[in-house]
Amino acid sequence: MKSSVYEACKAALGLDATSTTANHQEQLLECVASSNASSIDSFFLIYASSLVFFMQAGFAMLCAGSVQKKNVMNTMLKNLLDACGAALSFYAVGFAFAYGGSYDEENEGKTTFIGTNNFFLVGVEDLMFWMFQFAFAATSATIVAGTLAERCQMPAYLCYSLVVTGFVYPIVVHAIWSPQGFLSPHRDDPLWGSGFIDFAGSTVVHFTGGFTALIATYLLGPRRGRFYDTRGRLLDTPNPMPGHSSALQMLGAFILWFGWYGFNVGSAISITGPDQSSIISISAVNTTLAAASSCASALGVNYVIAERRTGEGEFCLKAALNGCLSGLVAITGGCAVVEPWAAVVIGALAGPLYLVSSNLLIRARIDDAGMLSLLTCACLHST
Amino acid sequence: MKSSVYEACKAALGLDATSTTANHQEQLLECVASSNASSIDSFFLIYASSLVFFMQAGFAMLCAGSVQKKNVMNTMLKNLLDACGAALSFYAVGFAFAYGGSYDEENEGKTTFIGTNNFFLVGVEDLMFWMFQFAFAATSATIVAGTLAERCQMPAYLCYSLVVTGFVYPIVVHAIWSPQGFLSPHRDDPLWGSGFIDFAGSTVVHFTGGFTALIATYLLGPRRGRFYDTRGRLLDTPNPMPGHSSALQMLGAFILWFGWYGFNVGSAISITGPDQSSIISISAVNTTLAAASSCASALGVNYVIAERRTGEGEFCLKAALNGCLSGLVAITGGCAVVEPWAAVVIGALAGPLYLVSSNLLIRARIDDAGMLSLLTCACLHST
Amino acid sequence: MKSSVYEACKAALGLDATSTTANHQEQLLECVASSNASSIDSFFLIYASSLVFFMQAGFAMLCAGSVQKKNVMNTMLKNLLDACGAALSFYAVGFAFAYGGSYDEENEGKTTFIGTNNFFLVGVEDLMFWMFQFAFAATSATIVAGTLAERCQMPAYLCYSLVVTGFVYPIVVHAIWSPQGFLSPHRDDPLWGSGFIDFAGSTVVHFTGGFTALIATYLLGPRRGRFYDTRGRLLDTPNPMPGHSSALQMLGAFILWFGWYGFNVGSAISITGPDQSSIISISAVNTTLAAASSCASALGVNYVIAERRTGEGEFCLKAALNGCLSGLVAITGGCAVVEPWAAVVIGALAGPLYLVSSNLLIRARIDDAGMLSLLTCACLHST
Repeated sequence: MKSSVYEACKAALGLDATSTTANHQEQLLECVASSNASSIDSFFLIYASSLVFFMQAGFAMLCAGSVQKKNVMNTMLKNLLDACGAALSFYAVGFAFAYGGSYDEENEGKTTFIGTNNFFLVGVEDLMFWMFQFAFAATSATIVAGTLAERCQMPAYLCYSLVVTGFVYPIVVHAIWSPQGFLSPHRDDPLWGSGFIDFAGSTVVHFTGGFTALIATYLLGPRRGRFYDTRGRLLDTPNPMPGHSSALQMLGAFILWFGWYGFNVGSAISITGPDQSSIISISAVNTTLAAASSCASALGVNYVIAERRTGEGEFCLKAALNGCLSGLVAITGGCAVVEPWAAVVIGALAGPLYLVSSNLLIRARIDDAGMLSLLTCACLHST
Repeated sequence: MKSSVYEACKAALGLDATSTTANHQEQLLECVASSNASSIDSFFLIYASSLVFFMQAGFAMLCAGSVQKKNVMNTMLKNLLDACGAALSFYAVGFAFAYGGSYDEENEGKTTFIGTNNFFLVGVEDLMFWMFQFAFAATSATIVAGTLAERCQMPAYLCYSLVVTGFVYPIVVHAIWSPQGFLSPHRDDPLWGSGFIDFAGSTVVHFTGGFTALIATYLLGPRRGRFYDTRGRLLDTPNPMPGHSSALQMLGAFILWFGWYGFNVGSAISITGPDQSSIISISAVNTTLAAASSCASALGVNYVIAERRTGEGEFCLKAALNGCLSGLVAITGGCAVVEPWAAVVIGALAGPLYLVSSNLLIRARIDDAGMLSLLTCACLHST
Repeated sequence: MKSSVYEACKAALGLDATSTTANHQEQLLECVASSNASSIDSFFLIYASSLVFFMQAGFAMLCAGSVQKKNVMNTMLKNLLDACGAALSFYAVGFAFAYGGSYDEENEGKTTFIGTNNFFLVGVEDLMFWMFQFAFAATSATIVAGTLAERCQMPAYLCYSLVVTGFVYPIVVHAIWSPQGFLSPHRDDPLWGSGFIDFAGSTVVHFTGGFTALIATYLLGPRRGRFYDTRGRLLDTPNPMPGHSSALQMLGAFILWFGWYGFNVGSAISITGPDQSSIISISAVNTTLAAASSCASALGVNYVIAERRTGEGEFCLKAALNGCLSGLVAITGGCAVVEPWAAVVIGALAGPLYLVSSNLLIRARIDDAGMLSLLTCACLHST
């Protein structure tokens, strides 16, 4: 039985077959342990990154199912450009703005507004970390593709996408996750001592995405025919403009839920070392429970509201599905630190909150084709 | 090179830099080995759990493609509620009934009908094990969603879903997989010495699901227009009621096959230690071969039957696809113990068996919208 | 804390509790390191295999979306048969032709045209390696399913599929990847010293698939109504015959991209040992960047061409999507060895190259329903 790890460590330490003093033994053990642990962690990150990347497919299917049939091709192109634009602009400048120089020794303890190093990945050693961060950046951009569905010119959207992943999102990341950020928990006194821990990017990813989406949706105005008729007169009841395929919507939601295991679990970055296994376990369990309870509560509350209004309850797929997603968004920030029962409670609150914010948006005549309302609500909730 | 695993073990054992006696070395090696192995195993379980969870998307797409277009939304909602209901009821009571107290020392050697501990996950240390078990429970519930498609009121379905994952399935699990179960292979004399090994849950998951589905389908009766016309007269030939999208059916089948690698491979629970790697390898290979040979044999036999009946052979996607899935179900129980050639044979038998049982069900006028027939057949076969 | 890995190694080495000499310590450390490393590698391969297998679903959805609605069922059946046929024929003979006896001591240093051992997996110890290789073989067969869409009888297709995975593909694999192959980099003087390294199967998988597809498409001729009208007169402009669902096309492309992380990353085969982590990281990053830049360049060039021709630019989903996939194919061969900036350049070239070859094929009246053009182009490019 020949161990390449063992042999490699021996070679690296310059030991030959005869050096068996206790001190050498100890160095060898340390090297072997660390080599295996780093293999596990690299593998863990590529697993998590690929799952988070796959969420792009989930968003695309959710959008495809939620828009009218004639707009599918356009919406798909926006989703694809989000993924590609995110890769290119996060490669060129985004990563540099977010983490550039963050781990250099000379910068230790400093607070900066933005990173100024490592453009085009020059000098970055841990490429897998870029990969994982790219998948997050792409997610924050794609969230908006859904809310802007069926409106927005392609060139304008392309600009938006590049600016968000190359500039807006990295600045938020730098503030919160980089050791030099002014909200970073690594600092002694962040934000007048209030601290700020965002485990899996509840604020960073979803708030950035959701807030951008809210502004964009407001500026662009509603889809034609949503609140006003063709002559511009206000409709008595808004035109619901239902999506054309509930199968694709459901597929999208399940892919997102699946990807969320990479998102929340992968946020631990490392699976080796003490307590990491239990952090990862509880993240996975909480993610599941929050999604489930949020789905159930949104469905139930929606049923009761419908019964009050029309005398007959209604089981609504859209409510259940968006409830489920808002539960996932809501648990993201705290998934590693709360108890399972708390995850159930967070989910149970996130469901109705989505319904409320969805209604508020309709009253304010902000037209949300995708999932703006759930983001808005869940973000307020989780932060 | 600094190894956090190594340092953590040193700290845990209370060793300082100077303690390098052979005995300390040995303790340290044991600790490091075990720490890395447990990281690998946790990671392995979260990988397998997420794949098994993703099977929900597979079932949903299979159902969506198999029903008529007007019923897609309803069917999707049932699939979503299955996943969510399973999470909540398996969290609240299911896990407790299945494994509650199973690993406590005081219970060692006892035989119990049901677990009575750990409700709401209180006192459960290995949360990742719950996660994996939940994914299995959800699968056993979802199987039925397909067979009941296009019938069944939503509230009734909800009740069913909660009872299966919270009560029926856990009792079967307790009997077979818990060390206190009366059919458990951990016991000296289970079932008058006949023993009972169910590696990846062939019986536990598929038989429970399939048998429940058979009863439910019988009780609910066929879909309107399936065997009788609108005036209630028996049709000469049953209305085939084909699904509306073969693309979604195919997608569902591929997702299920993909998820099955998590299902069968993950059933080893651990990937570290002697022989685990080869158990996992052979499980993956057998899963592949059984699915392939079952698909081929179902397609071929169906072709020959069609040729005998009508004079012209027919390549039928439905036969191939369900053949493939029945091969997957059939290999589940024995995937870790049979040779590859046996997996091919098991698959080759499962395919035609599906066709036979599908025909029997039609003769008995039991209307199977989803995949009841393949479950029924494959279960008989595998157990 | 009890370590089964540790105990197993102790037992395997025949050590009891009292043997703590330095020499025993060393053997124990080597055994533990190697046991954990091999668990990680097995896990890594099953992860990569399952992702590569999932690419079958991606191809199927890409095809389903790209054909006319009436042909979906037929196309799906071909995709399913590819996966199943590949499993059976690669099990029976393909693996034997590709690697049979390659790692036997007696064959060391010999050059053979074809393997002659291990038929039906008899005598194969590392089954996980078969699993990974099968997933690759299935991919090379499935590529063709798309290009032949909407033509080709089922029995003919079945034969083709079995011959490719059982014979054609294995011969190419043997030549390039087996230690006895005449193009193998393991040899001292392969191909008159030119050497030949194909990291993730750019040539082996994509060239074999693409070249087979080109021949097949040429022989079968175009779809009816593509270049000629029903009376056989040449059309002024070819009938574009657009696919029926851009949502499914997009889903397919995202699943393929997702699976490509298994394809390129998994090609490292092992994740333990020195440098493997960085090989894997750079493979993942390059895969991402090439896909993104290729998508952007194909979209942009297509926009400019359309503007020149018609005076109005057009954002075309088909160009973006196929550009993305040709970037993925193009980076496959070199993903582990080039710098990130080079991956961006390779992608940026692959995009327009796809457009050019797509146009050439149309001029030559070769009708590519699927993705032949991108394969042809990307293969030329990458090799």
